[in-house]
Amino acid sequence: MLTKNNIIKDLKTILPRENVLTELEERYAYSQDATNLPDIKNLADAVVFVETIQEVQNVVRLARKYKTPVICRGAGTNVVGACAAEHGGIILNFSRMNKILELNRQNMTARVQPGVVVGVLQQMAENVGLYYPPDPSNLAVSTMGGSIAQSSGGARTFKYGSTKDYIIDLKVVMADGEILQTGANTIKNATGYNLSSLFVGSEGTLGIVVEATVKLIPKPEDKRVLMAYFDKIEDSVAAVDSIIEQRVFPTTIDFMDQNAIQTVEKFYPSNLLTDKEAALVIEVDGFKNAVEYQSEIIKSILHSANASAIQCSTNEEEYNKIWTARRSSMGACAKLKPNVTTDDVIVPRENLAKLVIGIREICEKYNLAVCMVGHVGDGSVHPQIPIDYRDTDEYHRFKLAKSEIYDLTARLDGILSGEHGIGSLKRDYIHLVVNNTALDYMRTIKKTFDPDNILNPYKIF
Amino acid sequence: MLTKNNIIKDLKTILPRENVLTELEERYAYSQDATNLPDIKNLADAVVFVETIQEVQNVVRLARKYKTPVICRGAGTNVVGACAAEHGGIILNFSRMNKILELNRQNMTARVQPGVVVGVLQQMAENVGLYYPPDPSNLAVSTMGGSIAQSSGGARTFKYGSTKDYIIDLKVVMADGEILQTGANTIKNATGYNLSSLFVGSEGTLGIVVEATVKLIPKPEDKRVLMAYFDKIEDSVAAVDSIIEQRVFPTTIDFMDQNAIQTVEKFYPSNLLTDKEAALVIEVDGFKNAVEYQSEIIKSILHSANASAIQCSTNEEEYNKIWTARRSSMGACAKLKPNVTTDDVIVPRENLAKLVIGIREICEKYNLAVCMVGHVGDGSVHPQIPIDYRDTDEYHRFKLAKSEIYDLTARLDGILSGEHGIGSLKRDYIHLVVNNTALDYMRTIKKTFDPDNILNPYKIF
Repeated sequence: MLTKNNIIKDLKTILPRENVLTELEERYAYSQDATNLPDIKNLADAVVFVETIQEVQNVVRLARKYKTPVICRGAGTNVVGACAAEHGGIILNFSRMNKILELNRQNMTARVQPGVVVGVLQQMAENVGLYYPPDPSNLAVSTMGGSIAQSSGGARTFKYGSTKDYIIDLKVVMADGEILQTGANTIKNATGYNLSSLFVGSEGTLGIVVEATVKLIPKPEDKRVLMAYFDKIEDSVAAVDSIIEQRVFPTTIDFMDQNAIQTVEKFYPSNLLTDKEAALVIEVDGFKNAVEYQSEIIKSILHSANASAIQCSTNEEEYNKIWTARRSSMGACAKLKPNVTTDDVIVPRENLAKLVIGIREICEKYNLAVCMVGHVGDGSVHPQIPIDYRDTDEYHRFKLAKSEIYDLTARLDGILSGEHGIGSLKRDYIHLVVNNTALDYMRTIKKTFDPDNILNPYKIF
Repeated sequence: MLTKNNIIKDLKTILPRENVLTELEERYAYSQDATNLPDIKNLADAVVFVETIQEVQNVVRLARKYKTPVICRGAGTNVVGACAAEHGGIILNFSRMNKILELNRQNMTARVQPGVVVGVLQQMAENVGLYYPPDPSNLAVSTMGGSIAQSSGGARTFKYGSTKDYIIDLKVVMADGEILQTGANTIKNATGYNLSSLFVGSEGTLGIVVEATVKLIPKPEDKRVLMAYFDKIEDSVAAVDSIIEQRVFPTTIDFMDQNAIQTVEKFYPSNLLTDKEAALVIEVDGFKNAVEYQSEIIKSILHSANASAIQCSTNEEEYNKIWTARRSSMGACAKLKPNVTTDDVIVPRENLAKLVIGIREICEKYNLAVCMVGHVGDGSVHPQIPIDYRDTDEYHRFKLAKSEIYDLTARLDGILSGEHGIGSLKRDYIHLVVNNTALDYMRTIKKTFDPDNILNPYKIF
């Protein structure tokens, strides 16, 4: 307690007093993220708003002196407890370090602070004819810092890759308060080890990203989205293979199962066909004539692949309607019960139908509802399970189901996260998919970079 | 000497005797790579052909016992002395571990041994409608192991990224002989630290890649190449900006300066316009109609951007003719003097014209010829300097010029390699572009992964 008081006293000497929050309700509010699971114990000792790199360095040095945890927070949209303050400590709130420092059209790069909202960067880039492809579904609020920490993906990953493919340089405050520059302002880099990629997806455990340079690409001229329904899940997955065989390279091949379709339609009526077992949401982009051409090819492939109905956007309104339906799944699901959880498992695409069907069977066995959406082109599934945490029996069944889903994923040669990260939520399961040698090397790297274990401690493993 | 004899004796007990080469001429031959600089001292104690992962493990354990270097070698095409045996030791020749172990159309992945030739993988993928984009210019002989070690790029990087963007999993023999699996057979991965990317570009200094899984993409239906000439270098660079402003996303935007044009034309007549100061080689790919459309837009942009002549391939023969001219630059340059060297510097694109002009001035100052080609879309330049190593004065001037080129690159916010690596050739200059903190972290990682410094020691830094 004395230590905590000293930490707070010291924090107020290195930061403007109004930027140091210490009231219980403040600490509680900023210790929550979108995970919100009842068994993650979580309360910071202080929440600080940082505004400069120097301030971040000072806070880290202070934390090191007291050997107290430092946990970074952007918008708190992560769903794996990645920014939970499980062992107390200081939450670094980056919401005020939210400037796009440079948007360089000629270099096709942007340099941003960690608090920049992903959707804002996308919009600013598009305003000058450029494009930042990674699009986590919460991009309207989620921040660059968080998306780097969790290696965010999104619907466009199939064609464009995920966050890691766009980070060319990072400025990182290390555990000793020093600044590490990981890369360079160049599109390619074979000059020493790829430190940038080591930090992407490291969930704030190796260092604190205080500035990032991202690569941009030319903005596609046009885009269109198709929604195709199937009577059998297997047919929907087989349709993806047929598309690729015809050398079409969609931006997105997303998936909704019947429960997701029905739940969305129930709460956000969108004329979805609720009697179908699965739907694919396929987006193509490029020049207008190429988009037109690809849409026609895809329609013809989908017909041959037993699609029982196909909708295709012909204007922006229809485009938005389909995407809104797809993106409403989590929100709709949240209306079924007081709480909702999502997950992120991914397998080689050849095993995807087995994963989807298996997850449904597991949830049926434990008497749980599940809405499944996912990025089927990548082999990734997000099972959304509505739940009432106060119902201890249901929560117990939920935990058992989760464990079986992870076992199934591992048996299908998959891994526990493609784009959300591991955080606190899945660290007890990571050994199912990452072997001991790899875990040992990860732990060694962690220990080398953060010997006092102050940077978001005990996350991932 | 006694130790060396013991190493050789032991090698012959763990490998078939005929796979252990110890004669001077054999050791000499396999110690050379395409770098071939006179001041890299280089002679292995033994060259071994490995055929299984178990054999690699056994050799590494032996090397560890004797604390002797292990240097991996594929086709030896690297140009930075990355596989030079500067401190003796054992060269691991991977040419017999050259199998494509799996080509999975549904997962869009391939699993390969390190000795697989890049061009062979490309061809096998294309045979089933898939595409492996990284295309180092020596892809007809260079191997996957080498391209992973050096983080190879190539002409298609502008649109498709480099080797690091395609490696999803590696099996690596570590310095203690244990096997580390770095990733998974999934397109996305946010499950723990990104160990795969740490090994790509690490030049064999952290572990020995014995198997790699790469991501493939759908093969574009069609492609076309344009060659545009300019009277001023600045105009050629400005033309690239105009192309991107029009949202065209070419596969390749390559560059040749006048010396490169003239030298190619002299030795491989290709109807190049030798009175022009620069040429761009621009490739577009995609569906036939999109390729047609993009070519027309690019032609119109190039006309507005002061291109003084434009050629466009209309069939495969013309396509190959333009590319053969571009790729003949190094070979043509080699006919000017007994030796030829190439380099690989890269800057933010806004500084590219300054870099090209600056390199020309430096070479003029030191009375050296230089042919410049490069991937101008990426900001990358390969200055090819013909030289006679026996002429000690010329070699001295060459070294001074190199040093100034690296200084210039650093001043222009660039780095010393975008796709060749650092090896032995540039390690004395890496501090110009990578700060001490980053170098310290790289050294720490090296020491942690390879405490006895046996894996390709003293490369990079």
